Amino acid sequence: MRRGGDGSGLARAVVEVQSVADIQGVLKVARKYHLPVIPQTTATSTVIGSDGIAGGLILSTRKMAQILEISKDDSLAVVQPGVVNGDLDQAARKQGLFYAPDPASKPFSSIGGNVSTNAGGMSTVRYGATKDNVLGLKVVLADGRKVTLGGRTLKQAFGYDLTQLFVGAEGTLGIVYEITVKLMPIPLGTSIMGLAFFKDMAQLAQGVTAIRMSGVYPTMLEALDGNTIGALDKYEKTHYADKSGAMLIFRLDGSSDANIQVLKDLLAKYDAQDVQVTADEDEQAQLIQLRRDMLPAVFAGQNHLMEDMALPLSQLAPMMAYIQQVGHDLGVTIYTAGHAGDGNVHPTLVWPKDQPEVPGAVLEALRRIFWKTLELGGTISGEHAVGMMKNQWNQPELDDNVDYLQHQLKTLLDPMNLLNPKRKIN
Amino acid sequence: MRRGGDGSGLARAVVEVQSVADIQGVLKVARKYHLPVIPQTTATSTVIGSDGIAGGLILSTRKMAQILEISKDDSLAVVQPGVVNGDLDQAARKQGLFYAPDPASKPFSSIGGNVSTNAGGMSTVRYGATKDNVLGLKVVLADGRKVTLGGRTLKQAFGYDLTQLFVGAEGTLGIVYEITVKLMPIPLGTSIMGLAFFKDMAQLAQGVTAIRMSGVYPTMLEALDGNTIGALDKYEKTHYADKSGAMLIFRLDGSSDANIQVLKDLLAKYDAQDVQVTADEDEQAQLIQLRRDMLPAVFAGQNHLMEDMALPLSQLAPMMAYIQQVGHDLGVTIYTAGHAGDGNVHPTLVWPKDQPEVPGAVLEALRRIFWKTLELGGTISGEHAVGMMKNQWNQPELDDNVDYLQHQLKTLLDPMNLLNPKRKIN
Repeated sequence: MRRGGDGSGLARAVVEVQSVADIQGVLKVARKYHLPVIPQTTATSTVIGSDGIAGGLILSTRKMAQILEISKDDSLAVVQPGVVNGDLDQAARKQGLFYAPDPASKPFSSIGGNVSTNAGGMSTVRYGATKDNVLGLKVVLADGRKVTLGGRTLKQAFGYDLTQLFVGAEGTLGIVYEITVKLMPIPLGTSIMGLAFFKDMAQLAQGVTAIRMSGVYPTMLEALDGNTIGALDKYEKTHYADKSGAMLIFRLDGSSDANIQVLKDLLAKYDAQDVQVTADEDEQAQLIQLRRDMLPAVFAGQNHLMEDMALPLSQLAPMMAYIQQVGHDLGVTIYTAGHAGDGNVHPTLVWPKDQPEVPGAVLEALRRIFWKTLELGGTISGEHAVGMMKNQWNQPELDDNVDYLQHQLKTLLDPMNLLNPKRKIN
Repeated sequence: MRRGGDGSGLARAVVEVQSVADIQGVLKVARKYHLPVIPQTTATSTVIGSDGIAGGLILSTRKMAQILEISKDDSLAVVQPGVVNGDLDQAARKQGLFYAPDPASKPFSSIGGNVSTNAGGMSTVRYGATKDNVLGLKVVLADGRKVTLGGRTLKQAFGYDLTQLFVGAEGTLGIVYEITVKLMPIPLGTSIMGLAFFKDMAQLAQGVTAIRMSGVYPTMLEALDGNTIGALDKYEKTHYADKSGAMLIFRLDGSSDANIQVLKDLLAKYDAQDVQVTADEDEQAQLIQLRRDMLPAVFAGQNHLMEDMALPLSQLAPMMAYIQQVGHDLGVTIYTAGHAGDGNVHPTLVWPKDQPEVPGAVLEALRRIFWKTLELGGTISGEHAVGMMKNQWNQPELDDNVDYLQHQLKTLLDPMNLLNPKRKIN
């Protein structure tokens, strides 16, 4: 959340644009003086994706924050990039619809940032990530040209899918200034949320697989490991960790009593303990808050790095076990939670507050975890993107031909390498 | 389904490749002698997307038709391009999963072709089109390089989304030789299908909107206009058209009794007549067959052009009315059906069998319908792609900057314009 600089020096200026003409103006100056342009909205990237660069221009679309349209009839919204995710969702709910992608940063991250990172969230397991919910984009390219990609239709088979090329491009290919997103109808039927505790993460993973395969189409399957439960206990003054090595937070939307019973039966079959299920909205809000409290609970009084890998579903449990082993071997405390329903894992590695440098053991743990992820067929970025934190991993993650192809595309669209340089692909 | 030629002359050869090395070999010859390469599997394109070109090489991956893997644990399949959609679906169902995209050509079109056109289908309204179900691709580029795009994870935020660039590219950017697709668990709960009849299409469209918005998440909402019902009556010896101007075929999967009741109540509210609902599998298969019979019923004994536009949801009814008006004004018989749940319309324009040339009035009707589609914010290709049938519409459909950008990408990936030339973008 450092708006101006990244330690390599302060940006030359922060320009808060308010129109397409403003964006084109900034790019014109950048081309003339060969200045890096760093697109930014709420500056909440977790991978150093939008911090300033020495001598560069921060192009902030934070003030382009209008919801331009919510169309109930077309089930979509048109927004400017600075609109906060949660604000759009609330506005949609007033019309009986909702905006599905729900990153942990939902209360404060912007749709523009979500698009640029292809943000996921807890309910990606049912509704997909940001890319699955974007219908169209308006973009200013590095040369100042405006392009309109996609549109207002749910089906589209005309041109190349350039919309998806810009989703997740982290501002390296153009400046997004308008976004059309799908809105979903609120599912009919009972919504329930619940908690369940398992002996360990392997057992939890088996339960999660069984629930997925049962065809109940859950909206949320969140896993927290023993360390994380311990941190939450401290923070919430609870005693969950006394009896469990793994916690599952689950949600079913628009479900029938029969489906809810199947879920309960599966939890029992996989030896879940202290299962709580509630259809009460306030109690559900408390459970979501419990999941959100995980981060402050884990971060409290410690330096930390939170990571983000996605695995093939069957590799979630082996990965969880491996992370625990690495922590043990290297003497690094690691808290692991994840969106178990789609194989997305977030280990948080911590070290003492009074130690400003990242310890060697933490870096080594990360290195081992990333290599293991790739070995298991996973990706080292599931929903947080690349930024400056992971671009040195381009070659093992992508094959060399793909790395080369990415640079060919980047050079085509931004031949002066003005847009968010040293991020994502470089 | 003309494998060899398109009327401009026969292709020089049809090469049935069986390996990546074969594909690379064909491309090497093509580069050396500057020969067009036409990728083809089952050759069932509806937009002249894979017919031969005089002097070119047809690169057929029809014999690369192995299901390489069905992974229940990872909920995915890995297939070669020649695998037929329906065969993959059947194989998945044996493991309690299914492959969701279901184009009308499901029994005979290939996954490779479905990927190249971003094929949709009846249940796209719930499960998305092909692009929403592809996790990864392996592709040989025009220069012979192999690239591996995407992979086996459900979330992915590392590189540019090149997978989606190749889905729907109609073989103009590379030759796809391996495809990883999502498989979905079979929804738990009751599956019902049914029929309902409405006074007219406008009334049907209102009912469809209400059903969508109710949150029951239907799997199918198929609309057939009066002309189509009449053709079906002739074909099936039924008398549906006597009492109705519009027919709706619907499906709910994994639903509760409560949801089914809501659906019935909405149908009643919008004056649906003769509503039939069945949970019986055989009767459901008959309803799907009825929908599938629509095409032979309409085509019977006539020359025809079937079109494919997608509209913003609210514009479906106005578009249906406009099509009817155009048919009336120009004296052209038009049968219109569509995937009403996602705004996708298929008008079929017919003329006498003894008249080989497309009549001027038919061409004029199409021209008017396409312009109206664009005026209403739609696309003139929802799920059939562009081929040689619609590439002359690139400029009104896409803005000129996007048209130019498409050519920049094409030139980057295929600088000699070898891959499926004169299609899609040219």
